[in-house]
Amino acid sequence: MIILNRREIELLIDLPKMAKAVEEAYLSASTGKVKLPPVGHIAFPDLSADCHIKYGHLDGQANFVIKVATGFPQNSEKGQPTGNGLVLVMSALTGEVCALLHDEMLLTDVRTGLGGAIASRTLARSDAKKFLIVGTGSQVRWQIEAHKTLMPQLTHFELWGRNTERAHQAVSKVLNIGEVLVATDLKQAVQKADVIVTATGSTQPVIRSGWVKDGAHITAIGADAPGKQELDVELVARAECLVVDLVSQCVDHGEVFHAISSQLVDQSRLVEIGQVLENPTLGRVNDTQVTIADLTGIAAQDIAISNALLDLLNN
Amino acid sequence: MIILNRREIELLIDLPKMAKAVEEAYLSASTGKVKLPPVGHIAFPDLSADCHIKYGHLDGQANFVIKVATGFPQNSEKGQPTGNGLVLVMSALTGEVCALLHDEMLLTDVRTGLGGAIASRTLARSDAKKFLIVGTGSQVRWQIEAHKTLMPQLTHFELWGRNTERAHQAVSKVLNIGEVLVATDLKQAVQKADVIVTATGSTQPVIRSGWVKDGAHITAIGADAPGKQELDVELVARAECLVVDLVSQCVDHGEVFHAISSQLVDQSRLVEIGQVLENPTLGRVNDTQVTIADLTGIAAQDIAISNALLDLLNN
Repeated sequence: MIILNRREIELLIDLPKMAKAVEEAYLSASTGKVKLPPVGHIAFPDLSADCHIKYGHLDGQANFVIKVATGFPQNSEKGQPTGNGLVLVMSALTGEVCALLHDEMLLTDVRTGLGGAIASRTLARSDAKKFLIVGTGSQVRWQIEAHKTLMPQLTHFELWGRNTERAHQAVSKVLNIGEVLVATDLKQAVQKADVIVTATGSTQPVIRSGWVKDGAHITAIGADAPGKQELDVELVARAECLVVDLVSQCVDHGEVFHAISSQLVDQSRLVEIGQVLENPTLGRVNDTQVTIADLTGIAAQDIAISNALLDLLNN
Repeated sequence: MIILNRREIELLIDLPKMAKAVEEAYLSASTGKVKLPPVGHIAFPDLSADCHIKYGHLDGQANFVIKVATGFPQNSEKGQPTGNGLVLVMSALTGEVCALLHDEMLLTDVRTGLGGAIASRTLARSDAKKFLIVGTGSQVRWQIEAHKTLMPQLTHFELWGRNTERAHQAVSKVLNIGEVLVATDLKQAVQKADVIVTATGSTQPVIRSGWVKDGAHITAIGADAPGKQELDVELVARAECLVVDLVSQCVDHGEVFHAISSQLVDQSRLVEIGQVLENPTLGRVNDTQVTIADLTGIAAQDIAISNALLDLLNN
């Protein structure tokens, strides 16, 4: 059994190779080539804490993957991370434990960053230059690095956060990317952006439809649980191309949930990112459309990135 | 994070202390003091293989436990174990991974042995001397060692197996127990036994009611999945005291499933082992009763033995 800790995993990260694996995972998920049993869950109500167990198998792969992720909000009072966990890579041929990846959520961060950048690359205008991320969490680093890797045409990177000090701290963690500016005015930053990533824990709209220019693309990744929302429903309704990672998950707790509840959007308009990768005509068709990718995170990404990491270790 | 392999775990095993933990787990399970979400499951139909994820939390304990167990029958063709897996011990206070117990099913074997012996001690006549186990698998060692530990009054140990060579091999693995005889005639061995443990993978009755003497106790542990059966339904119906580990599990795939399906036994007769431990008058009340414990194995045992192991490591 291979055992890797967070630091060892970080040293193995190869964004271009892992992006390929995550892209294949989206394709597999949208074509039914992945086995994903219901997510396991155990709650600790006294601490408002819980643990999720996501697991599954991509057709034809030699391994299956079990991801254990905990969320204990009270850890922050002691200055400890609230998220924790590990990934088990198991042989789908013998049932043996191949690897324990004690990543403390690093692989989730990386696959989320790559998922966002894959969606942006697939849906944004090919001449997009100005990138804006909203939020100050761990996704700042991974969204920016993944977008830089997959979309070399992006030349301007900006970040806006409610807390300016945290915004500067987040920017300082981004590697090998040149300058990332901290924006002081969100509305102005949105108005000029070609690609916007929202990565906040917000429960009410942060981005207004009126601020977004024609032809812009938005990748929203913050709404990963019920009750969260980053985009106003008018913006979601305005998008001529509305892409999700998994329809069943997004209608339950993604950005599109709110727009569908308000009857501004019909579920039939939703297209999965895997479907667009398979058939690009389902994506952006002109330079004035607003496109939105609403990503809630799917277990197929976890499976793909874990297997990709082991491939990187072995090759 | 503590990481222990099978050998390291085996060196820490302390049957009396672990028996206490398993006994408390039965009590907790029968009094609703354990949180046990539905078991996770992923199947690999091409290989008739699968993986179960059992997890839960005993009220008040500092840790919760996730057990991953795989069954890949085709491994036997290569001389490899068909069962595999590990146990994760997680902090219920912070969500951190406390320990990875790469036990390759050893802890399951030990908790199953202890569960059987706890049931026999609770239900057998106090003057029971003659012990018989039917089967030649890994349970031979653990049932015999656990019964010897918890029931010092047992003086005669016998084993019967369909395959005599395997029966001798199984006996050779039992430690510190004195002589274990390999019986050649099952019927005769059953007729004289005070305590009988059935631990086979049989799908049809192995023990006939007519062979079992009055006052005997039977602990049946083989029927851990649908389709399995070790006792004939007349024997189950004859038992005046019919004890299970978990009613909901046993009516689905335990020995009692067959007796209930045949309408020879009403579900209302079933008593959980935790209830008998709490209130001994629900168990054996005289020396002529036949008592049966039908054990399918419950996640509360896994939680208890894993926590007990960490306690042994830390003390």
